[in-house]
Amino acid sequence: MPLLVVGSVALDSVHTPTASRENVLGGSAIFFSYAASYFTSVRLVGAVGDDWPTPHTHLLQSRGIDTSGLEVIPGAKTFRWRGRYLPNMNDRETLEIHLNVFATFQPELHDEHRRCPFVFLANGSPKLQLQVLDQAEGARLVVADTMDLWIREERDDLMRLFQRINGLVLNDSEAKLLTGQENLVLAGHMVREMGPKFVVIKKGEHGAMFFSEHETYVLPAYPTEKVIDPTGAGDSFAGGMMGFLAQSGNFEPTTLKHAMAYGILAASFTVEDFSLDRLRKIERQDIDRRMQEYRKMLSF
Amino acid sequence: MPLLVVGSVALDSVHTPTASRENVLGGSAIFFSYAASYFTSVRLVGAVGDDWPTPHTHLLQSRGIDTSGLEVIPGAKTFRWRGRYLPNMNDRETLEIHLNVFATFQPELHDEHRRCPFVFLANGSPKLQLQVLDQAEGARLVVADTMDLWIREERDDLMRLFQRINGLVLNDSEAKLLTGQENLVLAGHMVREMGPKFVVIKKGEHGAMFFSEHETYVLPAYPTEKVIDPTGAGDSFAGGMMGFLAQSGNFEPTTLKHAMAYGILAASFTVEDFSLDRLRKIERQDIDRRMQEYRKMLSF
Repeated sequence: MPLLVVGSVALDSVHTPTASRENVLGGSAIFFSYAASYFTSVRLVGAVGDDWPTPHTHLLQSRGIDTSGLEVIPGAKTFRWRGRYLPNMNDRETLEIHLNVFATFQPELHDEHRRCPFVFLANGSPKLQLQVLDQAEGARLVVADTMDLWIREERDDLMRLFQRINGLVLNDSEAKLLTGQENLVLAGHMVREMGPKFVVIKKGEHGAMFFSEHETYVLPAYPTEKVIDPTGAGDSFAGGMMGFLAQSGNFEPTTLKHAMAYGILAASFTVEDFSLDRLRKIERQDIDRRMQEYRKMLSF
Repeated sequence: MPLLVVGSVALDSVHTPTASRENVLGGSAIFFSYAASYFTSVRLVGAVGDDWPTPHTHLLQSRGIDTSGLEVIPGAKTFRWRGRYLPNMNDRETLEIHLNVFATFQPELHDEHRRCPFVFLANGSPKLQLQVLDQAEGARLVVADTMDLWIREERDDLMRLFQRINGLVLNDSEAKLLTGQENLVLAGHMVREMGPKFVVIKKGEHGAMFFSEHETYVLPAYPTEKVIDPTGAGDSFAGGMMGFLAQSGNFEPTTLKHAMAYGILAASFTVEDFSLDRLRKIERQDIDRRMQEYRKMLSF
């Protein structure tokens, strides 16, 4: 089934302890849709400026991603982010952020987008996410991401959003910030009690945790020794997860766990190079081969 | 098969953000042997002072632990440790440490102890561990623990030890310190190349990683929302792991993975209360019940 994603589209400049890249393809909706494209047909909604390199759009299209919702705003500039990773490759600092066109992004969904049954609200303010939700009339499963900025500054809108989504994906530090609880198992349940039917806490190199009313579980990350650039890992995780759910056409408990594993594997490829450089070199069969290894790793 | 452990026996004073305990039963060999006692017959070698409460010895004996190697040194005092956990319940600071009788501990193994096929060298200097190893004539599997102090101050002896052991268990920060490598997958392999046939990196609330020449895997921690006191979790992990290996009488790859899962579950009980207060309330069937849940959690 088709999967809609609305979120940021960016040009990233990334500094790691051993290498750097300037103005490479990035943004939550980009990593999400590219990872999801291995599983289902993806419809991307976002905005860029006229500094946007057209080959980026072609790259997305080459994976069958519907870019008809990617608006190019004349005279505007694309969202830019510059960040530096610390030697542990987990913590990072933002050096520069220019929201540019993303600051005034007011998505208007096409009819076809409005009818999408699977919807992911990627990085964006809860106000923006609610606005998309108002238009997503055909949505059967809505999952949102959030981040520290919105938890700190737009908590009321976030709580309103939580009443209207099926699932929430956030990382460990965001879950602690949102709940004031250091124990992630407790934090996960507390977030769930704020509204979402299920909550996924991403733990980076330590995998991900799942919480619903009846289930709590943890899956580890795939142990990769090649961590070149973690940018986009969380969005690729969400893309792999939602992509598999949309492919399966349901969100039953067993499908959800399988989907979370696919999310973990999609992220494990993303971190192996800058931007989409690793993902664009793989096929679905590479993900499935890693899935076989991953299942073997978890069985005894 | 019988399992020998040589290590520290202590009286711990523990401060957590919500509660404290004074002079409770602790020490690496204690947590190890209690956890291992659910799987096999355990022989404990250690030393205490005449301040040692005899009921502690009876508690160990009630689980069938052979305490004939627990020497009570007249006029000496038992090893004491006082520590405080930070709100994340993962990081801790040592407030006081009195090695007392442990500072001059020179274990002399009985004949029966020398013949033990499974041996665990718990917390102690590499010199002490080597000295035990010289006496462990019947050892078929030797696994050692180590800690930051010895990595920093007795590296040469540690490297000598590594040439003579089958397995090494250490935590994530120790693996990073030992190798200078922040990526734990790389660090694990680097430690293995220093000598041990296999290496287990304990990641606390994030589970544990295993490294041998042909295998690399990660298992997550059991997600417990009740973390009262993490003291002894790592030693209980090693106890559960070695206990199951000794029970199985082999250390084949499949047994090792199963053993690591038992280690994770033993630790998950330990953290649910101070000292041995949780472990002493359970039976083997409680561990096996949790194992069923754990296996279910990891299958999809």
